[in-house]
Amino acid sequence: MSSILPIINTLKQPSSWKWVEQAIAHLDIILLDHSHCERKAAGVALNLMFRYPSSTQLVRQLTAIAREELEHFELVNQWLERRGIPLAPLAAPPYGAGLTALIRKNEPERLLDSLLVSGLIEARSHERLGLLATHCPDRELAEFYRSLMASEARHYGIYWVLADTYFDRDVVKQRLEELAIQESELLATLHPEPRIHS
Amino acid sequence: MSSILPIINTLKQPSSWKWVEQAIAHLDIILLDHSHCERKAAGVALNLMFRYPSSTQLVRQLTAIAREELEHFELVNQWLERRGIPLAPLAAPPYGAGLTALIRKNEPERLLDSLLVSGLIEARSHERLGLLATHCPDRELAEFYRSLMASEARHYGIYWVLADTYFDRDVVKQRLEELAIQESELLATLHPEPRIHS
Repeated sequence: MSSILPIINTLKQPSSWKWVEQAIAHLDIILLDHSHCERKAAGVALNLMFRYPSSTQLVRQLTAIAREELEHFELVNQWLERRGIPLAPLAAPPYGAGLTALIRKNEPERLLDSLLVSGLIEARSHERLGLLATHCPDRELAEFYRSLMASEARHYGIYWVLADTYFDRDVVKQRLEELAIQESELLATLHPEPRIHS
Repeated sequence: MSSILPIINTLKQPSSWKWVEQAIAHLDIILLDHSHCERKAAGVALNLMFRYPSSTQLVRQLTAIAREELEHFELVNQWLERRGIPLAPLAAPPYGAGLTALIRKNEPERLLDSLLVSGLIEARSHERLGLLATHCPDRELAEFYRSLMASEARHYGIYWVLADTYFDRDVVKQRLEELAIQESELLATLHPEPRIHS
């Protein structure tokens, strides 16, 4: 079995079975990386609020996302504590920097790409937490992953709606298509270090 | 009447009556600036969490603070909406940059100063929201300011306890004394543009 069914249509390629095996074999590192992901997701939302302080819809929706990411960050950290895993820095996989490099530098393209890249990361997180929920041998941890999945899908939806609020739908669709291809490309080769986005 | 009684002992000088007059005469701008302050406070807490990802106590406490600042940000933005004030950027007063410049560049002094500066800003915000709660002619808005005051004082306490967790108490006290003098110094001359920290 080389691939899993895609959960969100946006994703061009489903995660490989190799990723699932790698993640399940290193659940402690995946949990620690997940903690970093939630904090980073809150940071990204907050940075967008700083960059576009007059965009009412964006500010309102991203405040809610940032609050929820911080809540998840707390929950993941409680799991770390339960399993006796100390908080520690972790080298990031190439995924995030690879996606950030695709964000165009000039406005309004920068805003569009920022929203779509964040949306794609949420969509991928939704898919991967779903895989963990299905395959994690620790039942309680599997349930925890399941409980977070819905939020990731909702966040994807919010980023999409924001893009659709500020840009023509055709422009959004076309750019999402381009970015989604690159997003899958970035995950085509499994990163040797286990990560949520390895 | 040239000054108001200090609410928190940490502050070396109470806010001047001139600030109260300026703020009450420009409540809409003060509300907009307050919104920026809450978002910035969340950003500062999150940045510290990024800079010290292994410091469990710091991460735990600042996650709670960041969540609460974002909640207040939402509440202030609801007030802006109610009063028909659009979200917009505002030039920052010299206060924040003046305090940031006092943070020493090398560790561990950088951590100590960052915690104490954030604590001082919370203490000052507590004092000023208290003044607004007392003097704001709009009863409902005054009540809103009163409802936020307690959090600011609690945040001050958290920053102090974190400093006390990672540093010797004598070192903390002495540095807080130095920084508190400078903090009051920065507010000694009223900034011409009405701000929470003008």
